[in-house]
Amino acid sequence: MTLDHVAIQTTDIAASVKWYVEHFDAQVLYQDASWAFLKMGGNKLALVDPRQHPAHVAVSVTGEQLEQASAAHGIKIDGHRDGTKGIYIKDPSGNAVELICYPPGETIYGKK
Amino acid sequence: MTLDHVAIQTTDIAASVKWYVEHFDAQVLYQDASWAFLKMGGNKLALVDPRQHPAHVAVSVTGEQLEQASAAHGIKIDGHRDGTKGIYIKDPSGNAVELICYPPGETIYGKK
Repeated sequence: MTLDHVAIQTTDIAASVKWYVEHFDAQVLYQDASWAFLKMGGNKLALVDPRQHPAHVAVSVTGEQLEQASAAHGIKIDGHRDGTKGIYIKDPSGNAVELICYPPGETIYGKK
Repeated sequence: MTLDHVAIQTTDIAASVKWYVEHFDAQVLYQDASWAFLKMGGNKLALVDPRQHPAHVAVSVTGEQLEQASAAHGIKIDGHRDGTKGIYIKDPSGNAVELICYPPGETIYGKK
């Protein structure tokens, strides 16, 4: 399975986006007031508002893998406005891990 | 510039490595008592002991870019046992960002 992205928390999305773009030529895939999605080289970094999203590691899974994990952990699958769906579980140290399933084809972020 | 890896903190490296391998078929590039380096799909995740390493985002840079950043931020470049060198800076929200420069050719982690 593929590590899709990692999300870190930031108190000012706009200032952080500006900083990552200026320092590292990050490409902005998406941005609103509560989070932003950046691409740096082939990899993706999410910047999230701590009041709305946990810091997390996101692993890309198939629909079948997501259904299995949902059943195994007893956690209901959440659909997101962007067409992705997923669940959050915890690793042994309590880090949030999102299992994320992308819809077929393109998303608003471009090809996954 | 490329997002090389992200490091998250874990209180038990061995237990966390086992969990990421079992759940996500993570490939173990390196592991000792203080940290581990995992590959999941094309991307890398570091698991670090909070007593020894900060959680961080690592951006791969050239030697020249590292020299420039070192001068701009007034931070001395650190050499690591694995042949990489780098500096840590902070993003606007205080997240640690490592600028990491890989030596030419292969590292102990395989091709970068």
